[in-house]
Amino acid sequence: QKAGQLFSGLLAMNVVFLGSAFLSSMIFNHVAITLADVWILLSILKVLCLCWITYYLLGTSRQPHAVLYRDSHAGPVWIRGSVLLFGSFSILLNVFQIGYSTILIQCKSRVEIVFPSIEILFICTQAFFLWHHSKDCIQVQHNFTRCGLMLTIATNLLLWLLAVTNDTIHMEIESQLREVERRFAGKAPVPHPYLGNETTSCICPNTTICKVFQKGYILLYPFNTEYCLVCCSVLYVMWKNVGRRISHHVPHIKPQFKLHGVVLGPLLGTMTIIIGICVFMMYQIQATGSAPNRQVFVMYYSYYIVLLPLMSVVAVIGTIIHALEKKELDTLKNPTRSLDVILLMGAALGQIGMSYFSIVAIVATDPRDLLNSLILSYSVLLIFQNITQNVFVIDGLHRQPFVAAAEARHAGHAGQHAAASELPGEEETTTSGKEEHTQMSRDIEREMKEEQNHEAYDQRQVSMLELGQEIRKASLSYIHSYSHLSWKRKALREISFFLVLCNIILWVMPTFGAHPVFENGLEKSFYGYSTWFAIVNFGLPLSVFYRMHSIGGLLEVYITA
Amino acid sequence: QKAGQLFSGLLAMNVVFLGSAFLSSMIFNHVAITLADVWILLSILKVLCLCWITYYLLGTSRQPHAVLYRDSHAGPVWIRGSVLLFGSFSILLNVFQIGYSTILIQCKSRVEIVFPSIEILFICTQAFFLWHHSKDCIQVQHNFTRCGLMLTIATNLLLWLLAVTNDTIHMEIESQLREVERRFAGKAPVPHPYLGNETTSCICPNTTICKVFQKGYILLYPFNTEYCLVCCSVLYVMWKNVGRRISHHVPHIKPQFKLHGVVLGPLLGTMTIIIGICVFMMYQIQATGSAPNRQVFVMYYSYYIVLLPLMSVVAVIGTIIHALEKKELDTLKNPTRSLDVILLMGAALGQIGMSYFSIVAIVATDPRDLLNSLILSYSVLLIFQNITQNVFVIDGLHRQPFVAAAEARHAGHAGQHAAASELPGEEETTTSGKEEHTQMSRDIEREMKEEQNHEAYDQRQVSMLELGQEIRKASLSYIHSYSHLSWKRKALREISFFLVLCNIILWVMPTFGAHPVFENGLEKSFYGYSTWFAIVNFGLPLSVFYRMHSIGGLLEVYITA
Repeated sequence: QKAGQLFSGLLAMNVVFLGSAFLSSMIFNHVAITLADVWILLSILKVLCLCWITYYLLGTSRQPHAVLYRDSHAGPVWIRGSVLLFGSFSILLNVFQIGYSTILIQCKSRVEIVFPSIEILFICTQAFFLWHHSKDCIQVQHNFTRCGLMLTIATNLLLWLLAVTNDTIHMEIESQLREVERRFAGKAPVPHPYLGNETTSCICPNTTICKVFQKGYILLYPFNTEYCLVCCSVLYVMWKNVGRRISHHVPHIKPQFKLHGVVLGPLLGTMTIIIGICVFMMYQIQATGSAPNRQVFVMYYSYYIVLLPLMSVVAVIGTIIHALEKKELDTLKNPTRSLDVILLMGAALGQIGMSYFSIVAIVATDPRDLLNSLILSYSVLLIFQNITQNVFVIDGLHRQPFVAAAEARHAGHAGQHAAASELPGEEETTTSGKEEHTQMSRDIEREMKEEQNHEAYDQRQVSMLELGQEIRKASLSYIHSYSHLSWKRKALREISFFLVLCNIILWVMPTFGAHPVFENGLEKSFYGYSTWFAIVNFGLPLSVFYRMHSIGGLLEVYITA
Repeated sequence: QKAGQLFSGLLAMNVVFLGSAFLSSMIFNHVAITLADVWILLSILKVLCLCWITYYLLGTSRQPHAVLYRDSHAGPVWIRGSVLLFGSFSILLNVFQIGYSTILIQCKSRVEIVFPSIEILFICTQAFFLWHHSKDCIQVQHNFTRCGLMLTIATNLLLWLLAVTNDTIHMEIESQLREVERRFAGKAPVPHPYLGNETTSCICPNTTICKVFQKGYILLYPFNTEYCLVCCSVLYVMWKNVGRRISHHVPHIKPQFKLHGVVLGPLLGTMTIIIGICVFMMYQIQATGSAPNRQVFVMYYSYYIVLLPLMSVVAVIGTIIHALEKKELDTLKNPTRSLDVILLMGAALGQIGMSYFSIVAIVATDPRDLLNSLILSYSVLLIFQNITQNVFVIDGLHRQPFVAAAEARHAGHAGQHAAASELPGEEETTTSGKEEHTQMSRDIEREMKEEQNHEAYDQRQVSMLELGQEIRKASLSYIHSYSHLSWKRKALREISFFLVLCNIILWVMPTFGAHPVFENGLEKSFYGYSTWFAIVNFGLPLSVFYRMHSIGGLLEVYITA
């Protein structure tokens, strides 16, 4: 097993390195390696992935005993939903691109229609694959499946890298164009970067549809990067689950998303979002205008400086409540959770790194200026907020879900279920003895069916007699559990809901174009244009991903609280 | 426990980020942040570490029940030896620097004597600490110790970062100076980078001692970088071992380093080293001369192209023999080994990344040129060699040591020891129930002592009578085991010894100044000076560390084979 993981990991590493070398060559030497070359490489990879996915869907997964176990933690609904959502936006993006290229067909090559088509096919197939198979613990063709998964992960990573470098260079070009525009007071289109110097000849005709394609392309771009990263994380969990065997004894009672009793968090959060959107609008109008004035930056940073300490304090309170609760810790093996923790910590590094660079730059120049002191406190608070939120979420993810027990009691099988769920999750990861195992599992299934029939028979007898009593009992217990939702659980839910809403607005702002770290010009002049550009290039996409990922983590904390 | 690890990890992360922001500011904005500022920051960190180490040596480790267990895998002799070796070279380096600054005291500030003094104190204390305490599994003041260790790790990492950036920029300055020298045919000293523009006023007087200080400084520099990394890895293992409890039932029988029966490997390896040194000498003389000609590059790369496939093939054969042997795998928890595996894979990334960049550059320019095709095959072979060697070493590290059993049989206690070593290592990482545990361990110690006394008494009775017979038996068993060293074990030893020697020469060449990736000019012109410089800056120190680390790993494989 280890050997298979090592081998497939090495495969992915080599593909990623080759791809990044290609990408860097394209960035630093436009002439020798063009964007078309990179696209050819990526298309080859995509076609290989498509072949493997098709083979998996039609061959591997349909073999007998291929998927005996499903990891109930893997691929929760919100992850699969975001795969679908971001996937459909990415498809739209590619459709726009095809449309744009078709209008300007006279100066663009045919391949610019072929590549997006392959991309669309790849996104559709992958989304379908992930929606249906993200929980699989495949038991056949281990090594081939591992290699296929790793190849797909590598392809997605490279697509992300391309999107990130493209996105930021696109930003750069846009800002340069704005200057040109200002100078000539004419209208210039947003050219596709790297693809030669057809900028001058390729001008978007003044039709609405062309403008729509251009604008849509710019708006939808961020979703594409998120799509790649989300796919990577789901695929990684699948890769970890290859060959894993999960005991049948752990029934996973899904806690439901319910809103009862939670008031303060949503209220405060919605207020934050509304104010945030106003600030964002004003920022966008002012900062993308002719000359960004100081006032708009002061407003933007003030908003953050009010919001961030609030979030930090709330997260600290949440952590303290977690410590007070003394709920038992969930120590079962759970690749999804381990990955979540690593991603939270890793993605936070981007934001924290950027903040430290800002801090050093400001302290070294002039920390007493109003705007500078605002940026300084903004950076410090951001670091503090990231750390406290991470501690809160990681702490919350390791708690046993509370609702599970309550639900079980509701259903009236409390004793039985509790006994079952208290059994330690015996995990066997050996791959031998497949035959006996499937025999065993069939036996268990038969037993379970008999038990169910028996229960059903019993209940039918009972139900006629005690129906009224049952209903009364159920409604009583509901009211009971509702009113007795302890203050600790209530507070945890309020806190996590509030943090979810805050993270949404903090995700929206950088995703849709507010990049004050770049636009305020302070760090840019301190580190020099290209250095600061590289730092932002690394940090910003990670911080956007961090916000999205912590929304997921916080939702999980909310549900299990 | 997890909380303590998380907290101390966050501390280290923040320190490292702050330090790297300082370093980057120094590199990209010489005026605002000078090298002196960075030194002040690092000196503060060093003093904090010194305080903690002193407290640990005098306070924590002397408390009752502080060190009940020692991790026998941690801090093997070759690691502690290299700490001492590199540490003493680093001290020498600092002495040279102090001497150099004292000679040029009229144009240098006093702090340039103060900082190296602090550095010397830090290196001495740390080396002493690591020599004596690297095996400790400390049981008191967990969190404080974790934070102290993490602070020391962060400081060492920052020292490494500073050394790496300094080292390469030093290279750059040297190469620029050579040009200046050529132009003016005069003599210019090697200035200290960053420390303002005293270059012109600070010329080394034409005394021998000043030249010695300069040359020694340049020669000893690489050891300093290695020292920091080695310290980091030892400290990390100590950090992982804080609060760990190890069962007393697993006696660790140290396999000895013996050379009997191994001939072919050392012979071939020594030949390789001798040829390598000749190639290196010629390269150094030619390439650092006025105009490096193609011939010397052809010679250098040819040497590698002959050597690398040989190493790869040998490693593959070794892996196959490992697979044939069917020795049981060692699956006990072992932080030292996990770290070794991660470091091997991580450090290899530097070399592999650089190779991929070279490949893309060559393929995109002109792969048919003689020198280019040599570089191309060199890069491909290097990737292949790194991967095969990693697989071989990782495979070898996970095998049960063979010698242990043989030694045990020698001693005549075969049954007893084998039974003891087959017991699974029961590890308890809970921190509660300390009292009972220490009670238990005292009981066990008393028992063991009694047993030993008993054995000794028995043996004394027996010894007088059967001494002659014993000696005869021992020598017979020695000859027996010597001749019956199975061909598989013999082959494994030959292979690992050969690879050790090869890695030594591959370590010596880049460490002492052969950097053809930089001097051949191909990639430099393709990616542009600064980009390629950054790539080499990242890759080269890692590849040097990789060679050193794989020497350690291969020695372990040799001993346990």
